Amino acid sequence: MPLHSPLLDRLREIFGPAACAADEASRLAYAYDNSRLDALPDAVVFPTGHAQVEALVRACREHRAPLVARGRGSNTTGATVPVAGGVVASFERMNRILRIDPDNRLAVVEPGVLNGDLQKALIAHGFFWPPDPSSAPWCSIGGNLACNAAGPRAVKYGTPRENTLGLRAVAGTGEGFRCGTWTSKGATGYDLTRLLIGSEGTLAVVTEATLKLTPRPSAIRTLRATYRDVDAAARAVARIMAQPATPCALEFIDGVALRLAHDYAPDAGVPLAGALLMIEVDGEPDALPAAAEAVARAARGDGLEELRIARDAVETQALWSARKALSPAQRTIAPDKINEDVVVPVSRLPELVAGIKRLAAQHDVLIVSFGHAGNGNLHVNLLPRDAAERERAHACLAEVFALVVELDGTLSGEHGIGIAKRPFMPLALQPSTLGLMRAVKQAFDPDGILNPGKLLP
Amino acid sequence: MPLHSPLLDRLREIFGPAACAADEASRLAYAYDNSRLDALPDAVVFPTGHAQVEALVRACREHRAPLVARGRGSNTTGATVPVAGGVVASFERMNRILRIDPDNRLAVVEPGVLNGDLQKALIAHGFFWPPDPSSAPWCSIGGNLACNAAGPRAVKYGTPRENTLGLRAVAGTGEGFRCGTWTSKGATGYDLTRLLIGSEGTLAVVTEATLKLTPRPSAIRTLRATYRDVDAAARAVARIMAQPATPCALEFIDGVALRLAHDYAPDAGVPLAGALLMIEVDGEPDALPAAAEAVARAARGDGLEELRIARDAVETQALWSARKALSPAQRTIAPDKINEDVVVPVSRLPELVAGIKRLAAQHDVLIVSFGHAGNGNLHVNLLPRDAAERERAHACLAEVFALVVELDGTLSGEHGIGIAKRPFMPLALQPSTLGLMRAVKQAFDPDGILNPGKLLP
Repeated sequence: MPLHSPLLDRLREIFGPAACAADEASRLAYAYDNSRLDALPDAVVFPTGHAQVEALVRACREHRAPLVARGRGSNTTGATVPVAGGVVASFERMNRILRIDPDNRLAVVEPGVLNGDLQKALIAHGFFWPPDPSSAPWCSIGGNLACNAAGPRAVKYGTPRENTLGLRAVAGTGEGFRCGTWTSKGATGYDLTRLLIGSEGTLAVVTEATLKLTPRPSAIRTLRATYRDVDAAARAVARIMAQPATPCALEFIDGVALRLAHDYAPDAGVPLAGALLMIEVDGEPDALPAAAEAVARAARGDGLEELRIARDAVETQALWSARKALSPAQRTIAPDKINEDVVVPVSRLPELVAGIKRLAAQHDVLIVSFGHAGNGNLHVNLLPRDAAERERAHACLAEVFALVVELDGTLSGEHGIGIAKRPFMPLALQPSTLGLMRAVKQAFDPDGILNPGKLLP
Repeated sequence: MPLHSPLLDRLREIFGPAACAADEASRLAYAYDNSRLDALPDAVVFPTGHAQVEALVRACREHRAPLVARGRGSNTTGATVPVAGGVVASFERMNRILRIDPDNRLAVVEPGVLNGDLQKALIAHGFFWPPDPSSAPWCSIGGNLACNAAGPRAVKYGTPRENTLGLRAVAGTGEGFRCGTWTSKGATGYDLTRLLIGSEGTLAVVTEATLKLTPRPSAIRTLRATYRDVDAAARAVARIMAQPATPCALEFIDGVALRLAHDYAPDAGVPLAGALLMIEVDGEPDALPAAAEAVARAARGDGLEELRIARDAVETQALWSARKALSPAQRTIAPDKINEDVVVPVSRLPELVAGIKRLAAQHDVLIVSFGHAGNGNLHVNLLPRDAAERERAHACLAEVFALVVELDGTLSGEHGIGIAKRPFMPLALQPSTLGLMRAVKQAFDPDGILNPGKLLP
């Protein structure tokens, strides 16, 4: 869809020449995200205030132009690729931390604040914001909210939906609104805050977020356990999650991934085993030994091969070696890896991993599985080494999703849907549920201008 | 609105004579709830399954008859009073615990299960479901979800919105649907689960809930601190909430309430002070002393008069005496008490309590304040002792809500809106926010049959 010139004139009025670009270089720079998909927008704007965003949405609505809000484009699903052209609004310049309020355990931020920058600013106050995607140093809070992005800590501290008190936003109608509260409890009407979180910019454009903060635990202890097979590791995960000392990370790596990391970095001390769990426990110094011991007790059991507890920072680094070597190892083998983040109930993890092994063999595709076992959230990475394998990988993927749904799981734990998983939504959700989601979309964005072509099939 | 006879015939078909009543005695029994407001329904039905509820909603929609779903009617806002007549669906017979699944930290329940019954069933598995309204022994999970009802434990463990994974429900269209997940993480489309929680039966009728369970801590320690004045107590609350050992209860009682409880039960050992905090810390036996000490340290400071730590169950009982005496004391003075549950940011508690004191004097109304200080959620109880004071109390209430909103607070923390607080919604929410809520209502319930006259003004 080409941009009508009257809209471009209006955008220049709203943003001024320094915050509105329609040259090819700028459009190219905002055509893609971390999904490696791309599509050219007609213009790029850089909002710095709420009123500007209201004017922007109204202008796009008047001209029926698509509007894609983006943070830093670190999402893996194509959620910020402007597939229908139109305007990309990059929030990278709307990045002020407006308030840190330790007494009320909250921070108010603009959407362009980087997750890592917020965490740094919170340290002095003794707090943190739990969502910790591995892209934390360069991903924005706005993007985290759009995708309900989480990370290892979610197992203990929850996702953005559990850690956001309120939002300011502009609906697809062009109307600005506030939802949620400045308090940690609220029962005043419908929960629009959580509805917007995870909606990938299809309902409204967020201009401010009030985040719930958590006091920073003063100490952390790291454990590594290897198991004979995935079954034994999954049973240990269930045991760990059934006792009160919930770890702040409970990460799983399957045997295929361990072998890969081991071969890539032979000197890094990566253990070979059927499966590995990385476990972190946090707390106050007085309480930590008992909590770590409770978790270690639960980690022990049939099929445990070795349990190591790090005694200092150097040993902690060493224990994480396998996980650290994993990403570069995958990139070396398959620069074009397909990175999924399916979730199943924790007790179904063995069936999931066994099923993936079967599908990998059947489709002749290399697949490694690792991720946030405490939430049953596995990164199932298909690693095609050539074009033919890439084609087989895509066929295999559909069966992976079918398997996940069969196991009472769902398509995404923390990456969202975007373009990549949109065709599979009818597999995961009933027609009636999808119908209600479409009705909600219609309520917020009657002309369908916000991030068209995403999330809902 | 009189019930058309064809609808009654249809209801008898769906439910059979034993689960459908239109006699006056039955209608009277379901005319009121704990708000002491009442309005007669035209019929009462007792669903026992999802398909039946689908048929019920379809029949009501076809006949444009209001439908009010209710649990045990323990809400205080009139949320289940059938103000427009029509059909009341009481879920008291749809009360099976369908599954307790410790490995996946979840329970699947029908909406009529009593909160207390679920808690009892979970003990054997070492788990609990955090929401703990004081009505827990006789209130239903469905009602808890409808109102986002919480209780003291919310300060550490959250409300139903943080403790529910998924729902099965029937929208106002008559279509059944599932939303949410059976996993502790999910980023697959819009969060309809949280949207339904707290919607007071105005969007859909819940027929099944998948609840997130928390491992039961093995020990608990109780502290009681008295302070010179409310300011000193509020500063202690902020200090307690700013350190990592979050208590599982942090309850506040103001000086007026203490005096009331003291005079009602002179021998119960109720202390007289400017304000009192009841604090509970839970955890594992090894970790508990350190956590209790951290909380005690934070509780100490300028204005502390006395800090007691219970050494056993008898002492714990004694410490809770003031709180225990408070409810009967209020009932004795004012059987017609007006019970609100406003919330403000924790740091604004002193301003709220000072403002309430001012309004109480100005309107010549007895007001006591107590409640969940860790969430800034105070029960502001107006205790009119005669008809004239009752009139003054209602005038005063509007100013209490205005004060709360001025302090960045909101109308309700855990009771919801119902009829009682509906006129005040425009005070708390912008017209644009209310407009979006109305559009969401329209999306779920296009004919406005579900619990009309509630929540949205």
